[in-house]
Amino acid sequence: MSQSGPTIVSDGAAPTACVLLIGNELLSGKTQDANLQFLGRELAGLGIRLGECRVVRDDHDAIIAHLNECRARYTYVFTTGGIGPTHDDITAEAVAAAFGVPLVVDAEAKRRLEAYGRELNEARLKMARVPEGASLIDNPISHAPGFRMDNVFVLAGIPSIARAMFSAAAAELRHGAAIHSASVDVWLREGDFAAVLERIAAAHADVEIGSYPFARDGRFGANLVVRGTDADIVEAVLARITAEMDALGGEPERRT
Amino acid sequence: MSQSGPTIVSDGAAPTACVLLIGNELLSGKTQDANLQFLGRELAGLGIRLGECRVVRDDHDAIIAHLNECRARYTYVFTTGGIGPTHDDITAEAVAAAFGVPLVVDAEAKRRLEAYGRELNEARLKMARVPEGASLIDNPISHAPGFRMDNVFVLAGIPSIARAMFSAAAAELRHGAAIHSASVDVWLREGDFAAVLERIAAAHADVEIGSYPFARDGRFGANLVVRGTDADIVEAVLARITAEMDALGGEPERRT
Repeated sequence: MSQSGPTIVSDGAAPTACVLLIGNELLSGKTQDANLQFLGRELAGLGIRLGECRVVRDDHDAIIAHLNECRARYTYVFTTGGIGPTHDDITAEAVAAAFGVPLVVDAEAKRRLEAYGRELNEARLKMARVPEGASLIDNPISHAPGFRMDNVFVLAGIPSIARAMFSAAAAELRHGAAIHSASVDVWLREGDFAAVLERIAAAHADVEIGSYPFARDGRFGANLVVRGTDADIVEAVLARITAEMDALGGEPERRT
Repeated sequence: MSQSGPTIVSDGAAPTACVLLIGNELLSGKTQDANLQFLGRELAGLGIRLGECRVVRDDHDAIIAHLNECRARYTYVFTTGGIGPTHDDITAEAVAAAFGVPLVVDAEAKRRLEAYGRELNEARLKMARVPEGASLIDNPISHAPGFRMDNVFVLAGIPSIARAMFSAAAAELRHGAAIHSASVDVWLREGDFAAVLERIAAAHADVEIGSYPFARDGRFGANLVVRGTDADIVEAVLARITAEMDALGGEPERRT
């Protein structure tokens, strides 16, 4: 393992992804991100494994470095943020620099911005600039498009627009085997069932088993999640977990 | 700029930080993160610049690679998640491996877990294991401690416990100049004021100016934020922005 991070193999069967959330406001505590969970859920539904996410400042060199690292490592990279008209919107310029191509005015993007009806001043024209060779991603909400450059999908930061752009781009993605998820709540402390759960996990390396503790109404419990590409196996493992937790007095309650 | 990412210089005046959020549930869409915004706000209050955040899977090699990359690059690294008793809690083991030291039972951590009164079985004893040489971070809520290893602070993932642990660890952090923030809402579209704001930003490189668009009650506006270490300069720049936006008809409203 090199210092530059893990290598995630993308073979034909298992597309992978990385999300880059771009914006100082996400690191200063000003803004609560609302895009990662949405993207994670959507990608899981398409069978695309989200390997990591990075939250990056509005910094030209930082965006370039992270983007070049991640686009080499994952099947797809999705960025959010920094494609508006103001001085702190530098994502398109950084993506162009990362690919070593100029930023050019896209005629179709310009046409859409003009059709939207507001004065196409210098600032708004900035939103029609994309890296040379990029294709547009539709924005049905505010019309200024996102874009795709090779395996990199550049989306807006505003959650409603990011979602609409992702939906517009999803048809271009290679899907993997859909990931099935099933879960059960148990009213036990993790320390009281960890050994049992570990034994089950060791016997079922073909699924991913997670334990997420909670406190509710003054009682402690945990949500036990099984995820995998074979729905029958996922259900069989959940059934075994449910039975063993019941035997421990955990009063299991199916969740999803 | 190398492929392995930007170098952020940490001189005596400006401590920096990176946050690693560890957990498959944050990447699968199951769980909305609630730790980054809190840590970002707290670090800003201490004058510690949060340079980036990474969301990492519960994967031994991935945690090691990201941790080694980030601990070399930032003054401090804060991790959340993966220090409970179940099989998917692998953070302590990965941190020990990243530092090349064994994982050992800490006598004081063991004492605290025993004093908490529950049977100290093999699973719970796991929570007393820390990398050799680590110091404990108090957990006033559920007693299983976090730990500090060199410049890496390992916190729980449950938000209430992560917050309590951060508060316990904050006294050990070197502070920078506190970052002041002030902001104003304006009722203009970004494209209509971007040129004016860019001119102001170019004249004040000593502060960071951000523009965050919103729609409220069917009207479009933007929150304009000025951040910097000199409160007088922050206020002077905000006053200039307010006056110029007023001249554009933006009906500026002071926020913070």
